[in-house]
Amino acid sequence: MKIDGTPFRSIWVDDTDRWSVRIIDQTKLPWSIDLARLTTMEGVAHAIKAMLVRGAPLIGASAAYGVALAMRADASDASLANAIAVLGATRPTAINLRWALARMQQALQPLSPAARTAAAYGEAAAICDEDVATNQAIGKHGLPLIAARAAGGRRVNVLTHCNAGWIATVDWGTALAPIYMAHDAGIDVHVWVEETRPRNQGASLTAWELGKHGVNHTVIADNAGGHMMQRGDVDLVIVGTDRVTRAGDVANKIGTYLKALAARDNGVPFWVALPSSTIDWTISDGLADIPIEERAASEVTTMTGRALDGSIATIRVVPKDSPAANPAFDVTPARLVSGLITERGLCDANEFALREMFRDIA
Amino acid sequence: MKIDGTPFRSIWVDDTDRWSVRIIDQTKLPWSIDLARLTTMEGVAHAIKAMLVRGAPLIGASAAYGVALAMRADASDASLANAIAVLGATRPTAINLRWALARMQQALQPLSPAARTAAAYGEAAAICDEDVATNQAIGKHGLPLIAARAAGGRRVNVLTHCNAGWIATVDWGTALAPIYMAHDAGIDVHVWVEETRPRNQGASLTAWELGKHGVNHTVIADNAGGHMMQRGDVDLVIVGTDRVTRAGDVANKIGTYLKALAARDNGVPFWVALPSSTIDWTISDGLADIPIEERAASEVTTMTGRALDGSIATIRVVPKDSPAANPAFDVTPARLVSGLITERGLCDANEFALREMFRDIA
Repeated sequence: MKIDGTPFRSIWVDDTDRWSVRIIDQTKLPWSIDLARLTTMEGVAHAIKAMLVRGAPLIGASAAYGVALAMRADASDASLANAIAVLGATRPTAINLRWALARMQQALQPLSPAARTAAAYGEAAAICDEDVATNQAIGKHGLPLIAARAAGGRRVNVLTHCNAGWIATVDWGTALAPIYMAHDAGIDVHVWVEETRPRNQGASLTAWELGKHGVNHTVIADNAGGHMMQRGDVDLVIVGTDRVTRAGDVANKIGTYLKALAARDNGVPFWVALPSSTIDWTISDGLADIPIEERAASEVTTMTGRALDGSIATIRVVPKDSPAANPAFDVTPARLVSGLITERGLCDANEFALREMFRDIA
Repeated sequence: MKIDGTPFRSIWVDDTDRWSVRIIDQTKLPWSIDLARLTTMEGVAHAIKAMLVRGAPLIGASAAYGVALAMRADASDASLANAIAVLGATRPTAINLRWALARMQQALQPLSPAARTAAAYGEAAAICDEDVATNQAIGKHGLPLIAARAAGGRRVNVLTHCNAGWIATVDWGTALAPIYMAHDAGIDVHVWVEETRPRNQGASLTAWELGKHGVNHTVIADNAGGHMMQRGDVDLVIVGTDRVTRAGDVANKIGTYLKALAARDNGVPFWVALPSSTIDWTISDGLADIPIEERAASEVTTMTGRALDGSIATIRVVPKDSPAANPAFDVTPARLVSGLITERGLCDANEFALREMFRDIA
């Protein structure tokens, strides 16, 4: 999508040196657009762990380039195994990470070391191009959900949580893809953007990218989404996901489950957008089997933003002797999901429908 | 309750001049304990509007003293009417404000102006002393809900939202009163304190007062409460309220409704603590009839806290061109409420039970 008129992806190979990996440092958003350069596998691992890149599809694409950088430095079997282990250990919840690494492993293991660097860059590029095409397809399949509610030019209000927009992916986004398409088609779409504490991906990332693309939106506290639904001000909810079980249970940013409950209580459709690489076919019970990342308490006890003098400041918002807990994801049971928006089309959130649509992968 | 060993109320008449009104300026918590002095009715109205004092019972007690200060300056009928109008217009949602002003009106209107100042101070003091006694009774009636779950010395986990502790009242609190009593009785009680964006009354006030009294607690993002319940880490939810309809619908800080939904989905009891002055007998349908205060967008777009250098700083957390909305309360339908903890005992959340328990008031 565009930033002030210039098309961007969230990750790319540098045009000049043709090997270093460029990313938008998302920890600096929305205050500055900082294009970082990653030159080692360890640098990529850090970028993932510290959330310079985040969002399940982008984590996968980043890890793929991490393997390519590892091969450029040392294309041995040991280096390949180490890269996969180190990158795989960065963040536990998003399944796309494991998927991308498995794909890189499969592509590179059979090759001789001399062939691995070029092949790795090629495979990472393919992962990226496919992600873009996949998300465009998700946008296309999700668009009717919005268009159907726009009869007579009425405004369609969509609520979203966290950031599942173009910067959570290589481009286009997942939950936001249908929204961008609706907007570009001239539909009056408005997005309720929940700020999404503690990391505020909604306020910092979703509001930023929607604003840069010209999509109407309003930021609200996470607490307010249920009230907006009770008021009749939400036509549908669309969120992304870090992992979906074969039974349709959905892991996503902490707080998603609460919005699914409110959507159910108010008769508001609750849709989850995802590429099939986000489905974990090895598990069924999301509550029991999806690992929920616990992150540092400081993400809860502090907030970072722009001070009056323009500097970026971190403030404490909790008394110093009060402990904090920080589970980063929660699980929405399939029974609360109206449906899944995938690159192959809309799919009910249950094992039968998922196996039907993805029988070649399941 | 105590602050570092010294007993405090949240509002009192100055010991020395015997007429000015002292409060803890809650906008300065948790970073400093600032005892402000209010000397005019307008000063009290500002203190309520700008949330130097907040919490439904404390708003009512503050307004009562606002009337007393007005009488001290000018005890005429016009001054009385003006004080009631100005104070009544400060904040629309808490019913205790209207209740306290009606009580002051009833007490003072029949008196000659010469008698009004002393009577006003007397009535305000009575409102405060009754609030303390009422909340102690709420604590006593709510205690068994916690004690019953502490068999064998096991830890009891209570989740709360916003601040309904002693600083939301004159003393003891409503939702926190049973928790203080349980703690003081030696029960191992732990409180999940939701930070409660956008004003962070949980992180700033609840965590502060629990910490000062020595009660174990952990601060979490509002998004995390449902997940904690899914994990089995919440034994019950106790919240306060700003207004309850005669049918048992509950208005409370925005986000409360989401926790009621999560409690229902996980079989966790959801209790609401309140003095009978919080019941609005004139309305039945909370969603239709309770006015929901909309506050400034800046409460969502900014956060205030302690910077590294110790100063209090306000930072922007939303891009400058992104609008924000800020409904301050939401309504939890009676069907999601396990019961009400009142000064007269536990009561089902329905009109029949409320009229039974309060037939002299209803």
